[in-house]
Amino acid sequence: MNNFGLFTDFYQLSMMQGYFKEKRDSVVVFDCFFRKHPFEGGYTIICGINEVVEYIQNLKFSDEDIEYLRTLNSFDDDFLQHLKTLKFSGEIYAMKEGSIAFAHEPIIRVKANILEAQLIETAILNIVNFQTLIATKSSRVVESAKGGGVMEFGLRRAQARSAGLYGSKAAIVGGCVGTSNVEAAKKFGLKVIGTHSHSWVQSFNSELESFRAYAKCYPNSTLLLIDTYNVLNSGLPNAITVFKELREKGYKPLGVRLDSGDLEYLSKEVRKALDAEGFKDAKITASNDLDEHLIEHLLINGAKIDNWGVGTRLITAHDSPSLGGVYKLSGVLKDGKIEPKMKISNDPRKINNPGLKQVYRLYDKDTDKAIADLITLDDEVINNDEIKIFHPLYTYKRKIVKNFYAKKLLKPLFIDGKFVGKMQSVKEIAKFAKEEKESMWEQYLRNIKPQTYKVDLSQKLWDIRESIIQKHKPN
Amino acid sequence: MNNFGLFTDFYQLSMMQGYFKEKRDSVVVFDCFFRKHPFEGGYTIICGINEVVEYIQNLKFSDEDIEYLRTLNSFDDDFLQHLKTLKFSGEIYAMKEGSIAFAHEPIIRVKANILEAQLIETAILNIVNFQTLIATKSSRVVESAKGGGVMEFGLRRAQARSAGLYGSKAAIVGGCVGTSNVEAAKKFGLKVIGTHSHSWVQSFNSELESFRAYAKCYPNSTLLLIDTYNVLNSGLPNAITVFKELREKGYKPLGVRLDSGDLEYLSKEVRKALDAEGFKDAKITASNDLDEHLIEHLLINGAKIDNWGVGTRLITAHDSPSLGGVYKLSGVLKDGKIEPKMKISNDPRKINNPGLKQVYRLYDKDTDKAIADLITLDDEVINNDEIKIFHPLYTYKRKIVKNFYAKKLLKPLFIDGKFVGKMQSVKEIAKFAKEEKESMWEQYLRNIKPQTYKVDLSQKLWDIRESIIQKHKPN
Repeated sequence: MNNFGLFTDFYQLSMMQGYFKEKRDSVVVFDCFFRKHPFEGGYTIICGINEVVEYIQNLKFSDEDIEYLRTLNSFDDDFLQHLKTLKFSGEIYAMKEGSIAFAHEPIIRVKANILEAQLIETAILNIVNFQTLIATKSSRVVESAKGGGVMEFGLRRAQARSAGLYGSKAAIVGGCVGTSNVEAAKKFGLKVIGTHSHSWVQSFNSELESFRAYAKCYPNSTLLLIDTYNVLNSGLPNAITVFKELREKGYKPLGVRLDSGDLEYLSKEVRKALDAEGFKDAKITASNDLDEHLIEHLLINGAKIDNWGVGTRLITAHDSPSLGGVYKLSGVLKDGKIEPKMKISNDPRKINNPGLKQVYRLYDKDTDKAIADLITLDDEVINNDEIKIFHPLYTYKRKIVKNFYAKKLLKPLFIDGKFVGKMQSVKEIAKFAKEEKESMWEQYLRNIKPQTYKVDLSQKLWDIRESIIQKHKPN
Repeated sequence: MNNFGLFTDFYQLSMMQGYFKEKRDSVVVFDCFFRKHPFEGGYTIICGINEVVEYIQNLKFSDEDIEYLRTLNSFDDDFLQHLKTLKFSGEIYAMKEGSIAFAHEPIIRVKANILEAQLIETAILNIVNFQTLIATKSSRVVESAKGGGVMEFGLRRAQARSAGLYGSKAAIVGGCVGTSNVEAAKKFGLKVIGTHSHSWVQSFNSELESFRAYAKCYPNSTLLLIDTYNVLNSGLPNAITVFKELREKGYKPLGVRLDSGDLEYLSKEVRKALDAEGFKDAKITASNDLDEHLIEHLLINGAKIDNWGVGTRLITAHDSPSLGGVYKLSGVLKDGKIEPKMKISNDPRKINNPGLKQVYRLYDKDTDKAIADLITLDDEVINNDEIKIFHPLYTYKRKIVKNFYAKKLLKPLFIDGKFVGKMQSVKEIAKFAKEEKESMWEQYLRNIKPQTYKVDLSQKLWDIRESIIQKHKPN
């Protein structure tokens, strides 16, 4: 899978050959951004930058790829020869993985020869759209659990193997404490979690026998699934019997898991019984089609659940299974200068921002909380004392920001095709995502009806945008 | 990615060590099945069997995998030594890839040593759940297009790379005519499709110049995207100009593509203009968040669209992005006989069918159309003259079937760990899926409110099921 040349849409190759034949080798600027937060939320956690780096570094066409393309009878030999030696030689700036980003902000900015810039569109979007979606979903689920541990259990329902693999990573970035996915745990150094399923219980002559066998094998980490037959009449009393036997031998049971039924009622009854028998430290884990809304609902109703196993609805982002990230041309280098480009649309939300840009986040000096983001041209110098910000569509919405410090969000990743960034471990990325959330006021992080965080354009960028719109207006 | 050992959930390994330590090496039976058709539909197209074969054939733990597992401090050396030599040595029966299947029917039946049978659960579900979901979604979209070609364009929104890869394959199995995904096209021998994007147009000084350049490069396959600036005032007239130039040179343009705006209105206007200029054969392709419902709506309103590019909503199965396929223990071999097992649940739909089973499809001798499916014990001989079938829950629903022939749907795939099936090409699988649909009355294939196809249990299987339920009833 390290063979990345054909990880693209066919039209990228058609266009590349077109540029090649027309001898168009201009340097262009593309921005990767999204227009709307997923899940009707107020923020998005960027994920997948490491895999973009891996892709760019390994991007090439193997001889076999070239021979395959030749069989399509669409490509001439001179172009295929060109592909054979192609490597990415341009510049990429990107937000740090784990960053919180907002709609219309460039997440990744590519400045490269048009053939290379075009080729990499599909893979960048594939990687970043999915991982960002899942990291954001995971963060929402983790927020809903109010401190309870959330575990990623979705591999069997993930959309093919690599969705399970990178989805697990993204879930950890979003705040999950562990995953059931062994391959992901190995690859990314994640905490791996899991005990037994119903079939373990069924394969023995009795539930009690199966629990005893499990406890014998894992006396230090006995967590029993108690809903195979009947939670209150069978699973719970059998678990307590085995927990007592463990206690007599000096072991401390971890707890029980519920995977079906009325989780609220059952968890309350199970908690009472465990407490009454002196197992106050035994934890209750629940699973079964959970998401942030169901977890909040269970908690508000007093369910006694300590930890959450979340599968299908996290790993597929079930209620909104795609992030609409796009990759749009925003400039063409002409005579040493970037000529700004944009696609005009009747829908104002679909107009992209032209030019080579930077994103600044302004933080309050007293609270260290983020105040607003400002999208500027790359070479603009911002005033560090006072900035007037205004809404790019509803320009009457204005605010003067003082007492702030600013950070640039787009950082160099590749310069002249060479990786100049720093690979972060998943643990580091998850830590950074947590810090990012701590830097935001909670009204922006709310799962339902969040406040809209301010993302404004510099006056200079706004002026360029307006002038292009006016130029293309009919009459 | 051919290293499959760790492509599993951690609890499978925990349980395997438990069985290993307890010296439990019974032969067990697991069924893979689903309980509900996706998309509120009436049928499901099975996909992913080839990849299950690939998985089983290559299943082993590398030395690196073993060393990783050792670092977790959960596994003893004797068990790790066992894993090192583990291969699948059991029996697998499965439906032919491309088959139409119904709820509760075993799609894949595994009979193997409990350690092996348990290990393979996660990967089988991951593979079959996703591909089956997308093949079924694709079939729905293709049905809605009423003969128009449907092209799979979703790679950039697919849930990571392998969802794009196997999703493309499944889309073709469901009836799509081609894909934009180059990697998938190469791997599976699919037709690959694509022309140019908005950025091609924007990167030139004018739209007309960009269209001319494209036509020059691809005179035999000129398909122009006409919505970069304004379809009716710019894209369409520019395309017609270039089409006329092509015609003068003796070339026949393919057509145009619309990717935004009011597809119904625009397609009608574009059709009129193309026809008026003598380009009656030029096709109109549309894309932009299409699915089966929007395509049906456009067609019923007379949109003049010939071909459809379907992305996000097909490759992610957007409105129902997971198939809830499960893998349940249904028997344990004791004294040479399969002792039937089932999980009892308060929800009758969640009770699985016990025992080692076969599925028969009964076809009418006159029409060759499917009448009903019958789930039986594996060793049952069915009466070929007359069968009384009845609904497994609402047993008063009965029917006598005559004048039929029966086919077994579960066929041997692995015997004693050896592959005994036949690998089909994706083209063959797609052809078979089409034949399967032709064998079904259309009321079962309807996208909305389909009739429920009859899937009944043999009397013998029903009796066993009832006796187990009665045995586990309290009082």
